[in-house]
Amino acid sequence: MPTANLFAALPAAGPDEVIETLVARGGVRIERIVSTGQASPPGFWYDQDEDEFVVLLAGAATLRFEDGRELALRPGDFVDIPAHCRHRVDATQAEPPTIWLAVFSR
Amino acid sequence: MPTANLFAALPAAGPDEVIETLVARGGVRIERIVSTGQASPPGFWYDQDEDEFVVLLAGAATLRFEDGRELALRPGDFVDIPAHCRHRVDATQAEPPTIWLAVFSR
Repeated sequence: MPTANLFAALPAAGPDEVIETLVARGGVRIERIVSTGQASPPGFWYDQDEDEFVVLLAGAATLRFEDGRELALRPGDFVDIPAHCRHRVDATQAEPPTIWLAVFSR
Repeated sequence: MPTANLFAALPAAGPDEVIETLVARGGVRIERIVSTGQASPPGFWYDQDEDEFVVLLAGAATLRFEDGRELALRPGDFVDIPAHCRHRVDATQAEPPTIWLAVFSR
Protein backbone atom coordinates (compact mmCIF):
# COMPACT_ATOMS: atom_id res chain seq x y z
CA MET A 1 0.00 0.00 0.00
CA PRO A 2 2.59 2.59 -1.02
CA THR A 3 1.60 6.23 -1.15
CA ALA A 4 2.95 8.42 -3.85
CA ASN A 5 2.09 11.65 -5.60
CA LEU A 6 1.00 12.03 -9.19
CA PHE A 7 2.69 15.42 -9.48
CA ALA A 8 6.01 14.28 -8.01
CA ALA A 9 9.00 12.46 -9.45
CA LEU A 10 8.32 13.73 -12.94
CA PRO A 11 10.61 12.22 -15.52
CA ALA A 12 12.97 14.43 -17.47
CA ALA A 13 11.54 15.50 -20.82
CA GLY A 14 12.57 13.11 -23.56
CA PRO A 15 11.47 12.03 -26.99
CA ASP A 16 8.73 9.76 -25.67
CA GLU A 17 5.85 9.93 -23.26
CA VAL A 18 6.62 8.23 -19.96
CA ILE A 19 4.06 5.70 -18.80
CA GLU A 20 4.04 4.23 -15.32
CA THR A 21 1.62 1.50 -14.34
CA LEU A 22 0.32 2.27 -10.88
CA VAL A 23 -2.12 -0.62 -10.56
CA ALA A 24 -2.76 -3.70 -12.69
CA ARG A 25 -5.10 -6.38 -11.49
CA GLY A 26 -8.14 -8.20 -12.72
CA GLY A 27 -9.36 -6.34 -15.75
CA VAL A 28 -8.06 -2.94 -14.62
CA ARG A 29 -4.85 -1.04 -15.31
CA ILE A 30 -4.19 2.44 -13.99
CA GLU A 31 -1.39 4.48 -15.52
CA ARG A 32 0.23 7.84 -15.00
CA ILE A 33 1.29 9.23 -18.34
CA VAL A 34 3.59 12.24 -18.61
CA SER A 35 3.67 13.98 -21.98
CA THR A 36 6.10 16.70 -22.91
CA GLY A 37 4.96 17.90 -26.29
CA GLN A 38 4.43 14.53 -27.94
CA ALA A 39 1.53 13.93 -30.31
CA SER A 40 0.31 10.90 -32.19
CA PRO A 41 2.12 10.39 -35.49
CA PRO A 42 0.34 11.78 -38.57
CA GLY A 43 -2.46 9.47 -39.62
CA PHE A 44 -2.22 7.35 -36.48
CA TRP A 45 -5.38 6.42 -34.58
CA TYR A 46 -5.60 4.61 -31.28
CA ASP A 47 -8.00 1.69 -31.67
CA GLN A 48 -7.95 0.03 -28.29
CA ASP A 49 -9.41 -3.23 -27.05
CA GLU A 50 -9.97 -1.64 -23.65
CA ASP A 51 -12.23 1.14 -22.45
CA GLU A 52 -10.18 4.12 -21.28
CA PHE A 53 -11.25 6.70 -18.73
CA VAL A 54 -8.66 9.45 -18.78
CA VAL A 55 -8.23 12.63 -16.75
CA LEU A 56 -5.86 15.44 -17.59
CA LEU A 57 -4.36 16.54 -14.29
CA ALA A 58 -1.81 19.12 -15.37
CA GLY A 59 -0.74 20.81 -18.58
CA ALA A 60 -2.97 20.81 -21.63
CA ALA A 61 -3.74 18.58 -24.59
CA THR A 62 -5.96 18.22 -27.60
CA LEU A 63 -7.65 14.92 -28.42
CA ARG A 64 -9.25 14.25 -31.76
CA PHE A 65 -11.80 11.59 -32.61
CA GLU A 66 -12.37 9.99 -35.96
CA ASP A 67 -15.86 11.49 -36.09
CA GLY A 68 -14.17 14.90 -36.28
CA ARG A 69 -14.72 15.98 -32.72
CA GLU A 70 -11.82 17.81 -31.06
CA LEU A 71 -11.44 18.15 -27.32
CA ALA A 72 -9.15 20.76 -25.80
CA LEU A 73 -8.42 19.43 -22.33
CA ARG A 74 -7.48 21.49 -19.32
CA PRO A 75 -6.63 20.28 -15.79
CA GLY A 76 -9.51 18.32 -14.31
CA ASP A 77 -11.11 17.50 -17.65
CA PHE A 78 -11.93 13.85 -18.09
CA VAL A 79 -13.24 11.81 -20.96
CA ASP A 80 -14.40 8.24 -21.22
CA ILE A 81 -13.28 6.59 -24.43
CA PRO A 82 -15.00 3.31 -25.25
CA ALA A 83 -12.99 0.45 -26.69
CA HIS A 84 -12.44 0.84 -30.42
CA CYS A 85 -13.45 4.49 -30.43
CA ARG A 86 -10.69 5.70 -32.71
CA HIS A 87 -8.88 8.74 -31.40
CA ARG A 88 -5.52 10.46 -31.46
CA VAL A 89 -3.56 12.99 -29.44
CA ASP A 90 -3.10 16.05 -31.63
CA ALA A 91 -1.00 18.02 -29.14
CA THR A 92 0.29 18.06 -25.58
CA GLN A 93 1.81 20.88 -23.59
CA ALA A 94 5.52 20.38 -22.99
CA GLU A 95 6.25 22.79 -20.17
CA PRO A 96 5.03 22.44 -17.54
CA PRO A 97 4.49 18.80 -18.48
CA THR A 98 1.11 17.29 -19.22
CA ILE A 99 0.08 14.68 -16.67
CA TRP A 100 -2.67 12.16 -17.35
CA LEU A 101 -4.28 9.52 -15.18
CA ALA A 102 -5.71 6.74 -17.31
CA VAL A 103 -7.89 3.83 -16.21
CA PHE A 104 -8.08 1.01 -18.74
CA SER A 105 -10.58 -1.76 -18.28
CA ARG A 106 -12.26 -4.57 -20.14
CA MET B 1 -18.44 10.27 -24.46
CA PRO B 2 -19.25 13.40 -22.45
CA THR B 3 -16.41 15.60 -21.22
CA ALA B 4 -16.58 17.16 -17.83
CA ASN B 5 -14.24 18.58 -15.23
CA LEU B 6 -13.50 17.11 -11.83
CA PHE B 7 -13.01 20.56 -10.32
CA ALA B 8 -16.23 22.01 -11.73
CA ALA B 9 -19.86 21.85 -10.64
CA LEU B 10 -18.93 21.32 -7.02
CA PRO B 11 -21.93 20.64 -4.84
CA ALA B 12 -22.82 23.03 -2.05
CA ALA B 13 -21.39 21.98 1.30
CA GLY B 14 -23.84 19.86 3.23
CA PRO B 15 -23.89 17.30 5.99
CA ASP B 16 -22.78 14.44 3.75
CA GLU B 17 -20.08 13.74 1.23
CA VAL B 18 -21.35 13.93 -2.34
CA ILE B 19 -20.54 10.93 -4.50
CA GLU B 20 -20.99 10.90 -8.27
CA THR B 21 -20.43 7.78 -10.30
CA LEU B 22 -18.58 8.74 -13.46
CA VAL B 23 -18.17 5.27 -14.92
CA ALA B 24 -19.58 1.87 -13.98
CA ARG B 25 -19.01 -1.10 -16.22
CA GLY B 26 -17.66 -4.58 -15.94
CA GLY B 27 -15.94 -4.80 -12.61
CA VAL B 28 -14.98 -1.13 -12.45
CA ARG B 29 -16.63 1.89 -10.87
CA ILE B 30 -15.09 5.36 -10.91
CA GLU B 31 -16.41 7.98 -8.55
CA ARG B 32 -15.80 11.62 -7.79
CA ILE B 33 -16.24 12.21 -4.08
CA VAL B 34 -16.47 15.72 -2.63
CA SER B 35 -15.88 16.01 1.10
CA THR B 36 -16.46 19.17 3.10
CA GLY B 37 -15.18 18.35 6.55
CA GLN B 38 -16.81 14.96 6.96
CA ALA B 39 -15.00 12.11 8.71
CA SER B 40 -15.88 8.51 9.40
CA PRO B 41 -17.99 8.09 12.54
CA PRO B 42 -16.06 7.18 15.69
CA GLY B 43 -15.16 3.50 15.65
CA PHE B 44 -16.22 3.03 12.03
CA TRP B 45 -13.96 1.15 9.64
CA TYR B 46 -14.46 0.69 5.92
CA ASP B 47 -14.15 -3.01 5.12
CA GLN B 48 -14.79 -3.19 1.40
CA ASP B 49 -15.29 -6.09 -0.95
CA GLU B 50 -13.59 -4.11 -3.71
CA ASP B 51 -10.07 -2.86 -4.18
CA GLU B 52 -9.96 0.94 -4.12
CA PHE B 53 -7.38 3.14 -5.81
CA VAL B 54 -7.97 6.67 -4.62
CA VAL B 55 -6.34 9.99 -5.47
CA LEU B 56 -6.81 13.18 -3.54
CA LEU B 57 -7.09 15.94 -6.16
CA ALA B 58 -7.85 18.99 -4.04
CA GLY B 59 -8.10 19.86 -0.37
CA ALA B 60 -6.58 17.62 2.27
CA ALA B 61 -7.49 14.55 4.27
CA THR B 62 -6.17 12.06 6.77
CA LEU B 63 -6.71 8.34 6.32
CA ARG B 64 -6.12 5.85 9.10
CA PHE B 65 -5.58 2.13 8.78
CA GLU B 66 -6.35 -0.49 11.37
CA ASP B 67 -2.64 -1.32 11.61
CA GLY B 68 -2.14 2.16 13.04
CA ARG B 69 -0.73 3.82 9.99
CA GLU B 70 -1.92 7.36 9.30
CA LEU B 71 -1.67 9.04 5.94
CA ALA B 72 -1.93 12.80 5.57
CA LEU B 73 -2.94 13.30 1.95
CA ARG B 74 -2.25 16.36 -0.15
CA PRO B 75 -3.27 17.03 -3.77
CA GLY B 76 -1.86 14.40 -6.08
CA ASP B 77 -1.33 11.81 -3.35
CA PHE B 78 -2.75 8.42 -4.19
CA VAL B 79 -3.11 5.22 -2.28
CA ASP B 80 -4.17 1.75 -3.30
CA ILE B 81 -6.35 0.09 -0.67
CA PRO B 82 -6.86 -3.64 -1.13
CA ALA B 83 -10.25 -5.16 -0.48
CA HIS B 84 -10.87 -5.75 3.22
CA CYS B 85 -8.00 -3.53 4.28
CA ARG B 86 -9.82 -1.77 7.10
CA HIS B 87 -9.46 1.98 7.02
CA ARG B 88 -11.26 5.16 7.97
CA VAL B 89 -11.25 8.83 7.08
CA ASP B 90 -10.14 10.73 10.16
CA ALA B 91 -10.52 14.20 8.67
CA THR B 92 -11.20 16.09 5.45
CA GLN B 93 -10.66 19.74 4.65
CA ALA B 94 -13.94 21.63 4.30
CA GLU B 95 -12.89 24.79 2.48
CA PRO B 96 -11.82 24.66 -0.23
CA PRO B 97 -13.52 21.28 -0.57
CA THR B 98 -11.66 18.00 -0.70
CA ILE B 99 -12.01 16.25 -4.05
CA TRP B 100 -11.24 12.56 -4.49
CA LEU B 101 -11.18 10.34 -7.55
CA ALA B 102 -11.77 6.71 -6.57
CA VAL B 103 -11.51 3.63 -8.77
CA PHE B 104 -13.18 0.57 -7.30
CA SER B 105 -12.62 -2.81 -8.87
CA ARG B 106 -13.00 -6.49 -8.18
